[in-house]
Amino acid sequence: MLDVSKTDERYKVLFEPVKIGPVIAPNRFYAVPHAMGHSPLMRNGSHAMRATKAEGGWGTVCMQLAEIDPTSDICDLPIETFWDEGDVREHRVLTDRLREIGSLSAIEIAHTGIRGRGMGTGMPVWGPSNLPCLKPQVPVQSKAMDKADIKALRQSFRAAVRRAKQAGYDIVYIYAAHDASILWHFLSPAYNHRSDEYGGSFENRLRLMREVLEETVEEAAGEMAVAVRLAVHEVGGRGKITHDGEGRDVVEALADLPDLWDVNIATWPHDSGTARFDNEGWQEEFTSFVKQVTSKPVVGVGRFTSPDTMVSQIKRGVLDLIGGARPSIADPYLPNKIREGRIEDIRECIGCNICVSSDAFSIPLNCTQNPTISQEWKRGWHPENVPHAKVKKNGLVVGSGPAGLECALVLARAGHHVTVAEKAGELGGRSLSESRLFGLGSWARVSDYRLYQLRQMSNVDLFANSDLNAESVAEMGADHTFIATGSHWLKNGLGSTHFEAIKGFEENALSVDEIIKSAKPEGPIVIYDDEHYYMGNVIAAHFAQLRHDVTLVTPQPYIAGWMGYTLEQPRVNKQMLELGVKVVPNAVASHHDGSALHLSDANTGALLAPVAGTLVPVGLRAPNLELWQALDGLENKTLIGDAVAPGIIQSAVFSGHKAARTFLNRGVEPAMKRERGVLY
Amino acid sequence: MLDVSKTDERYKVLFEPVKIGPVIAPNRFYAVPHAMGHSPLMRNGSHAMRATKAEGGWGTVCMQLAEIDPTSDICDLPIETFWDEGDVREHRVLTDRLREIGSLSAIEIAHTGIRGRGMGTGMPVWGPSNLPCLKPQVPVQSKAMDKADIKALRQSFRAAVRRAKQAGYDIVYIYAAHDASILWHFLSPAYNHRSDEYGGSFENRLRLMREVLEETVEEAAGEMAVAVRLAVHEVGGRGKITHDGEGRDVVEALADLPDLWDVNIATWPHDSGTARFDNEGWQEEFTSFVKQVTSKPVVGVGRFTSPDTMVSQIKRGVLDLIGGARPSIADPYLPNKIREGRIEDIRECIGCNICVSSDAFSIPLNCTQNPTISQEWKRGWHPENVPHAKVKKNGLVVGSGPAGLECALVLARAGHHVTVAEKAGELGGRSLSESRLFGLGSWARVSDYRLYQLRQMSNVDLFANSDLNAESVAEMGADHTFIATGSHWLKNGLGSTHFEAIKGFEENALSVDEIIKSAKPEGPIVIYDDEHYYMGNVIAAHFAQLRHDVTLVTPQPYIAGWMGYTLEQPRVNKQMLELGVKVVPNAVASHHDGSALHLSDANTGALLAPVAGTLVPVGLRAPNLELWQALDGLENKTLIGDAVAPGIIQSAVFSGHKAARTFLNRGVEPAMKRERGVLY
Repeated sequence: MLDVSKTDERYKVLFEPVKIGPVIAPNRFYAVPHAMGHSPLMRNGSHAMRATKAEGGWGTVCMQLAEIDPTSDICDLPIETFWDEGDVREHRVLTDRLREIGSLSAIEIAHTGIRGRGMGTGMPVWGPSNLPCLKPQVPVQSKAMDKADIKALRQSFRAAVRRAKQAGYDIVYIYAAHDASILWHFLSPAYNHRSDEYGGSFENRLRLMREVLEETVEEAAGEMAVAVRLAVHEVGGRGKITHDGEGRDVVEALADLPDLWDVNIATWPHDSGTARFDNEGWQEEFTSFVKQVTSKPVVGVGRFTSPDTMVSQIKRGVLDLIGGARPSIADPYLPNKIREGRIEDIRECIGCNICVSSDAFSIPLNCTQNPTISQEWKRGWHPENVPHAKVKKNGLVVGSGPAGLECALVLARAGHHVTVAEKAGELGGRSLSESRLFGLGSWARVSDYRLYQLRQMSNVDLFANSDLNAESVAEMGADHTFIATGSHWLKNGLGSTHFEAIKGFEENALSVDEIIKSAKPEGPIVIYDDEHYYMGNVIAAHFAQLRHDVTLVTPQPYIAGWMGYTLEQPRVNKQMLELGVKVVPNAVASHHDGSALHLSDANTGALLAPVAGTLVPVGLRAPNLELWQALDGLENKTLIGDAVAPGIIQSAVFSGHKAARTFLNRGVEPAMKRERGVLY
Repeated sequence: MLDVSKTDERYKVLFEPVKIGPVIAPNRFYAVPHAMGHSPLMRNGSHAMRATKAEGGWGTVCMQLAEIDPTSDICDLPIETFWDEGDVREHRVLTDRLREIGSLSAIEIAHTGIRGRGMGTGMPVWGPSNLPCLKPQVPVQSKAMDKADIKALRQSFRAAVRRAKQAGYDIVYIYAAHDASILWHFLSPAYNHRSDEYGGSFENRLRLMREVLEETVEEAAGEMAVAVRLAVHEVGGRGKITHDGEGRDVVEALADLPDLWDVNIATWPHDSGTARFDNEGWQEEFTSFVKQVTSKPVVGVGRFTSPDTMVSQIKRGVLDLIGGARPSIADPYLPNKIREGRIEDIRECIGCNICVSSDAFSIPLNCTQNPTISQEWKRGWHPENVPHAKVKKNGLVVGSGPAGLECALVLARAGHHVTVAEKAGELGGRSLSESRLFGLGSWARVSDYRLYQLRQMSNVDLFANSDLNAESVAEMGADHTFIATGSHWLKNGLGSTHFEAIKGFEENALSVDEIIKSAKPEGPIVIYDDEHYYMGNVIAAHFAQLRHDVTLVTPQPYIAGWMGYTLEQPRVNKQMLELGVKVVPNAVASHHDGSALHLSDANTGALLAPVAGTLVPVGLRAPNLELWQALDGLENKTLIGDAVAPGIIQSAVFSGHKAARTFLNRGVEPAMKRERGVLY
C-alpha cells in the first residue's frame, strides 16, 4: 500500500485503489495514452519515459496508440505498432518494468481507418465507405471495406488482444476517439454511408464497435481489463456525435460491457485544448453524464494539475480516475508530490502544446516545463534529480528568464551556490512579461515554479534591478558565469520570409517589446506577422479585446503556420473572426509611409489597399549580446537561451538545463545515446 | 572490364571507365546522392536499394545526405546520420557490398545549417548569421556561429571524413547545394551578414568552404576521392548565386582542388524539376561552363533516360559522368539495359516527383514506374525478376490502366498466360488519357513501357474494345481474374473537405472524365478543386492555354496542397499566374444555380462574388465496381488499383504489382520484413 502519512487529508481520496475489472489500480492517477514522437524503432526512449511516470506515482501508465496491423498506416507520424511477436517481446520489457515499479500497464490497440494514409505499407486505406483521407492533402481515398475486410479486421483485433496478454498488459483498449479510429468512423453518419448491416441505423453503425468489444472481452478472458476510449462529443469536426445524442447512446448501449470507460471529446484540437482556449477541467460539461450511465469506473482528462480540482472531480462523481497526458509530461512526479504533501513542487503544464507539436513534427516530444522529457534514456536525465556536486562552486546566472531560472535551479539542486542577477525590476523574463498578454496567463507558470523552488533554497541569491556589466561580473568572481540575457524583437521588417529590412518599418513601427512593456497605442493597429507562431495573433487578440481596430497581415497563405502543429491554428482563425480582427493573408509588405502599410499580393504582385494604423512587425529577434561580448576575456562562461538563438520558451528552458548539466559534468556536454537499428 | 559486346556502338562511350582522383569509376553512370525516405534506423532497406542500383550497372552509387553531427538536425525528415563509430560499422556493410558488385561508393557528408530545425537533438541551429530557419514555420532562429563554433565545425568535418575512410567509401563529398548546406549559407550574401573574415567579400564568404575542402583533401590523403557538390545557379530562392556570377567564381576559385565536380542548380524544386516544368537536360544551360573551368571530371543531372542525350552530353563536353537520381529509382537497371542493347526495356522516369513527396512525407520512397523501390529488402522484390512459375496458369486482367498492365506484366514474366481485356478503344487507361492534358505527356510512359514489354511476349494476349460482363468473364475460364476497372470522377461536389454533395453540381457540372475525353466547353471555365493534387490545376492550365477564361476555386488557403511535397506548388502558383488563371482560395462552394458558382469565405462565412462559367468539380472519384459486384459467385479473383480505392498512378501500379506477386506466392501476400530497433 502507498504511504499516505504525509498526504493532506483532503487529497487522500486520490490514493485509494480502484478496481478495474480483474486488476486493481493502486491509485487514481492514470497516465492516459498519448503520442510521444517515438517510432517503434525508438523503444528505449519510449519505455524510459513511461517508466519514469510510474516511478513518479502514476498508478496506471498507458502506451501510445498502437496500430494492430499494416492495414492501419498513419505514416508520416511516429506512431507505435503492435503487429507481431517482435512487438510482444519488446513491449514485455515495458510491462515488466512497470509491474516492478508497482503500476498497471495499458495498451491502446487501434486501427486508424481513414485517418491513415496507406502510403508507408502500400496497403489501401480502410474505411466504412469510399472517402477522402482525413489529412486533406493526401491524394488517396479509402476503400469501402467489404465483408471479408471486416472479418479480417475483427480477427486482427483478436490477435492483437492476444498479443497484449502475452506482452503482460493489465488493460487493453478498444479505441474510438480523436476521429482516428475505424470504429468511430463506422459509428459516425458523416463517414458511414453503407447500406448493409454495418450502416444506416445507430445499432448498425455501432455494430463493428460492439463486435470488436465483445471479442476483446472474450479474448481478454478475465485476465486483462478491457477499456473503451470514446469521444462522447464532437466540438468542431463533423459534429454528428454529441454528449446528449449518439455519444450518450453508445455509452448506454455498451454500459457495463467494458471494465473501464476512458472518455473525452473530439476533435483532437478540442481534446488537447490549450490554455489559451480551454481552462482546466473543460471536458466535464461533455463527459459528466458517463458515470450516471455505467457502473464501471470512468477516467477522463482536463489538463488537471490542481489536486483540489482532481478531488472535486471524484467527490462530485464526475470521474473515478484522474487522467493525465500533458500534466504527466510536464511533471511525471505529480502524484508523488501530492502524496508527499509537496503541492508547491508540482511543475504545472502550461497548456502550450509544444508536446503535441513535437509529435506532429515527427520528433520525440519536447515540453516547455519539463526539459528532461524524452531524455530519460537518451541523456540519462531525471525530471527531479541531478547529480550532487562533490565540490561546491559559485555560479552566477545573468538573466532570470526561462533559460536563466532553469539553469540556476539545476545548479542549486546539485548543491552549488547560485546567484541570479536580473536587470529588470522583477524576476521571470519573457515567461512573466508575455504572460500579461491576452490568453498567455499560464506562461507565468514557467517562472512561478522555478522561482518558488529557488526561494526555498539557502544556497541561492536572487537579485532584481541588478544590471551587471563586465566589471561587476568580474568582481563577483564566480567559478562559472551563465549569460541568459535573452533577445529583443526587431522592428525593421526582417522575418521568416523577409531577409532584408523593409523601408519605413524601423522609423514608424512599435516593437513587440514595446507592446509587451505596455505601450498603449491609440487608434487602429496593423500587425505584420512574418514569424508565424503565436505572437502576431496574440497581440491582435490583445488589442481587439481592448476594442482597437486590428488588422493582421501576413505574407503567407494563412496565419499562424506553426500552430497547425500545436492544433491551435483553426481556433486562432476562429478567435480572430470572433474578435473582429481583419486578417489579410498573402500580402507582402513593400514599405510603410508613416501612416499606412503598403502591400502587394504574394502571388500576383498586384498592389493591395494600404492599411493605416500603428504598425507592429512580428518577425525576427536579435540576441542581447552586449554583456557577453564585453566578457571576452572572462574564462568559464556559457551563453544560454534566446541569447544564443532566439526560439521558443521550451528551447530556452532546454538550453538552460543542458548548460547546467554540462557544468555538473565537468564542462563536458552529457553524452547522448542513440537508438540503433538491427542490421541483418 | 564490362562486357560491351552487345552495346550499340554509339553508346559505348558511356561504358568507358573514368578516373576520379585515386579511384576509377567503371563506367559513366553515376547514381547521385538523393533522399530516400529511410532514417538511419532503416539501413537494411536503404542498403538494399543502393545495392540494387549497383547490380543494375550504376558504376558509382552514392549514399543520401549524411549529417556529420547532432548540431546538424534537419529533423522531421528521414535523413542519414554519420555521427559515430556505430555509423561507420553499418555503412561499411554497404560499401563492402557495392565493392563486391563492382561499383564505387560515395558519401555526401553534410551540415545542413539553417535548413536544420534543431528540435530533435536540442542543439541550436547553426548559421552564418542570426536568421530564421529555412522552413518558414519553425519558430526558432539560427545562432550566428562564433569562432569556436567554426573551429568545432571544421573538426567535425575532418572527423567525418576519417569515418568515411574507415567505412570504406571511395568518394567523400563536400556538399554545397540545395540551399541545405552550411557552406552554401556562408557563401550566399543573402544569408551571410558577418563582418569578420568569414563575411563580406566573396573570398571571405568562400573561406569556410575552401577550408573544409582543403582539410577534406588532407584527411582523404589520396586514399579517397574528394567531390564537391555545388549548386552553381539559383533559379528562384534568393537568386544571389548565378552561373555567370559567383557560381562560376566558386568553380574558378577551387577549380582543381577536388577530384570531381558534381554540379546542379538551386533551389531543390528546380534541381528536381518535374516533367511538367522541365525537360530532360534542362540544367545544361546553367552547368555547361563547369568543364571549361576545371580539368577534373564533372557529373551533373537532368532526369536523363535517353542514351542519345547522355552520349550527347559527353561528346559535347558538358559532362563526364551521367548523374541520375530519379532515373536510377525508376530503373535501377538502366545502365545494364543500355549495355546489353535493350534500350526499349528502359523504364523511364516520368518526372512526377512521387519519390520526392515520399521523402518529404517521411516515408520510404515510392516510385510511379518502379513499384519495387524500397521493397528490395522489405518484401524481397527485384525490379526486373520475378519467381518463375512451375505450373503455368491462365490469368485474365480486366482493364489496361496502370494497375492492370503492371499486374499483367508480372504474371507474364513469371511465365503465366495472360489475357488483358480493355473496354476502351485503346490500351493504357488513365496514364494514357491523362497524358493528353497539358503538361502530363510523360504520364504515357507508364503504359508505353508496359505495353511494349507485353507485346514482345508470346504468352500475352491484349484486347482493346473488349467490354466483358460476368458471363463473358466466366466463359473465359481463367484460373484467376484480376479486376482493374479503375474509377470515375464524381461531379456532385464530394471532395476532401466536402463530405456531402453540393446543390446544383450534379446537374450543372462537366466531370473530369468528360474533360479528359475531350469535352470542348465554350466560354469561361470554373474549376472547384477539392482534391488538392494536380488535376484541378492541370485542367486550369489546359483550358487557359486554349485561351479560355479560367477561374480556379479552392476551399483551402492555397491551391495544390500535396504539390508542396512534390516541390511543384510554387511553380504551379506561378504557372496559374502566367497563364492568366484567376485563383480564388479560401472559397467554399454553397451551390451552383445553373449559371454561376456561389461561394462564401472559408474563414468568415461572408458571401463572395459568384463565378459564372462551365463548372468542373475536382473532388472524389468512385471505383468502377459493376463488373466486380456481378462476379460475386466467381472464385479466384482480385480487385486491384483505383477500383479498390482511387488514388494516384503510383498506388495503382503498386497495387497491381502486389496482387500479381501474391498470386505467384500461391495466393499469400508476400511477407513484409520490418526494420527493428535494438533494445538495450
